[in-house]
Amino acid sequence: MFRAAIEKMQPYVPGEQPRPGQRLIKLNTNENPYPPSPRIRRAIARAVAGDGLRLYPRPMADEFVAAAAKLYRVPSRMIVAGNGSDELLAMLFRAVLDPGDTVSYPVPTYPLYDTLAAIQEARVIRAEMDRDFGFPVEKLIDAAAKLTIICSPNSPTGTEVSRRELIRLLDGLSPRLVAVDEAYADFARRGLLGLVRSHRNLIVLRTLSKSFSLAGMRLGLCFAHESAIRQLLKVKDSYNLSRVAQAVGCAALEDARWAQRNAERIRRTRIEVTAQLRAMGFEVPPSAANFVLARMAGIDLSTVAAGLRKRGILVRYFGTALLYDSLRISIGLPAEMTILIRELKDLAAPLTLMSPGWRIVKEDSPRPRPPRPSQSARLNRKRPALAAPA
Amino acid sequence: MFRAAIEKMQPYVPGEQPRPGQRLIKLNTNENPYPPSPRIRRAIARAVAGDGLRLYPRPMADEFVAAAAKLYRVPSRMIVAGNGSDELLAMLFRAVLDPGDTVSYPVPTYPLYDTLAAIQEARVIRAEMDRDFGFPVEKLIDAAAKLTIICSPNSPTGTEVSRRELIRLLDGLSPRLVAVDEAYADFARRGLLGLVRSHRNLIVLRTLSKSFSLAGMRLGLCFAHESAIRQLLKVKDSYNLSRVAQAVGCAALEDARWAQRNAERIRRTRIEVTAQLRAMGFEVPPSAANFVLARMAGIDLSTVAAGLRKRGILVRYFGTALLYDSLRISIGLPAEMTILIRELKDLAAPLTLMSPGWRIVKEDSPRPRPPRPSQSARLNRKRPALAAPA
Repeated sequence: MFRAAIEKMQPYVPGEQPRPGQRLIKLNTNENPYPPSPRIRRAIARAVAGDGLRLYPRPMADEFVAAAAKLYRVPSRMIVAGNGSDELLAMLFRAVLDPGDTVSYPVPTYPLYDTLAAIQEARVIRAEMDRDFGFPVEKLIDAAAKLTIICSPNSPTGTEVSRRELIRLLDGLSPRLVAVDEAYADFARRGLLGLVRSHRNLIVLRTLSKSFSLAGMRLGLCFAHESAIRQLLKVKDSYNLSRVAQAVGCAALEDARWAQRNAERIRRTRIEVTAQLRAMGFEVPPSAANFVLARMAGIDLSTVAAGLRKRGILVRYFGTALLYDSLRISIGLPAEMTILIRELKDLAAPLTLMSPGWRIVKEDSPRPRPPRPSQSARLNRKRPALAAPA
Repeated sequence: MFRAAIEKMQPYVPGEQPRPGQRLIKLNTNENPYPPSPRIRRAIARAVAGDGLRLYPRPMADEFVAAAAKLYRVPSRMIVAGNGSDELLAMLFRAVLDPGDTVSYPVPTYPLYDTLAAIQEARVIRAEMDRDFGFPVEKLIDAAAKLTIICSPNSPTGTEVSRRELIRLLDGLSPRLVAVDEAYADFARRGLLGLVRSHRNLIVLRTLSKSFSLAGMRLGLCFAHESAIRQLLKVKDSYNLSRVAQAVGCAALEDARWAQRNAERIRRTRIEVTAQLRAMGFEVPPSAANFVLARMAGIDLSTVAAGLRKRGILVRYFGTALLYDSLRISIGLPAEMTILIRELKDLAAPLTLMSPGWRIVKEDSPRPRPPRPSQSARLNRKRPALAAPA
């Protein structure tokens, strides 16, 4: 009844969403702890008034796109708006990849790419990041995939590709497409969006979920050469953004300074949290996003994640071969991070004594079962000093 | 850079959406002329309060789905919610059709199916409706496509499949999937949704755009056996419905009587308009939807559609080989329909004298150019009486 590829694939599992009324410190899906611009409620009231809901929305979200064009200084014809950047990613995979075509991206990264590749039956070429979670630029160029995706700043590592590296990629892979998923760019020093004007093979994705505090609203933006936009529009649902979403998107972009102020607050908290986690013995790559990756090389952190969950704190634990020894922790309010650090000291401190240091683990090798404290008194030695991340 | 199938396909073109401030009588996209339930504004205010927008929505829209389960008496595990039923249709095509697989549907029908088939590179088997726009049940069974779609009530004809015909299709095609697009079911005497409980190969789609006056909000529902729902969920965007959309959907379904009262008003107007159009010489198949198809067999009605547009009235004109002689007219407010009928009398009356009567036109044959009034004085004869639709 269904495609064989669909029957056999595993569904993508998003981070836990608490039920209404559950009181948790939620640091697992990179939401913004600060509220969105107050202008948004007024925009919604206007959108809902009169004929607001009974009539179809504008198919191209013209006003939202115009607001994006103004804010990001990119012509409207180079922009398409999406129901979250997840929809734009799905459109990109759908428009580019035939069965058997190749798609390449650094790993570890956003696991949705695997799901979207499986739907298209594309062949994935995973390029493992280096020791410091730097981007494997040459591996990606050698892969010469039909579509290359760079999440930058990358989830879950927080590391970002440099402008020089991206230009090397764009030139090395041209005319093949390179998509940069900039969901977290507003928490970095600078985005790479400006390059769409000079590089025809570049596609840049943004979301309003993170820096604009609008995860609940589903708003994303895609920037690319107009010839690419034209193809993407063919696989877009005609009315993908509701009238409310379009009005909210417009109001949010028009008050971008609100989001910038919150991003600055989050950056400050991120710097403090990074220092506290490192002091505790975690390895934390320098993050340009609204989360940090806290790693204890070689130590299975599933029990720590479960322990935090019991204490009412949600962090993201992936449990894959590349990430079983790491927690991705979203940056919340300063008070929330104080509680996190306190609980983490209690749960993770015993483990810091047993870390065997960095180990390279192959993505397709079976997940190593690190020794449990009770079975490994011999490992109760001082952990080797870790190279400070660049 | 893109898939060859995408590069060569034509984009789907939705009906014209007036720009803000344009004052038109809008009878071209089957919107509801009555406003949605007043409960909806209160639900939006609640959804936007507190953490409403900064946190991700629930991936499965649990409360909206629960409200649908209650209203339609189908268990929640047999329901998936979509960003309009267009998204659910796209998910269905994506989950079922590999390149070269077959999809079949009666024509003329909703043109989006062609677009979705092109994206999947599926082979379309079009089953032409009969003289009275009845459903070609045997042709569809003979086609034995992997996926069969029945839009019922059908757009643009307004005709509906009977329960007996649908059961014949489900049995004749089992275990192949049959999807019934019931976007307009609330304007018919009865829907066919109940059959999902007894038929594992049936998928039923509903939308809140029409009867619930929520085209601007993007809300759809899909009902099917839970094994089918499980596959559809794999190709769903994780967070396809915003928190606002979920709250609106919930409130709308909880006040279904509001929508039922409006549907009843629309049915009454439809009966009047049908009679008026027939009196004017149009052939109007009996409609179970919130629109009627007004046909003047063999006469190109593009000039009538353009004439109405000039007078501020939008109707839908498709201009295809099967529909060049028809207008699809949404049922608006009684006062709007009075204006429509008045203008149509002026524009179409001269044409009624020249209709050569019914003609079968092949979908893939070049569009016939019917003679223009000025060139065809010889056709100025009384039009043959048309068989009254069943």
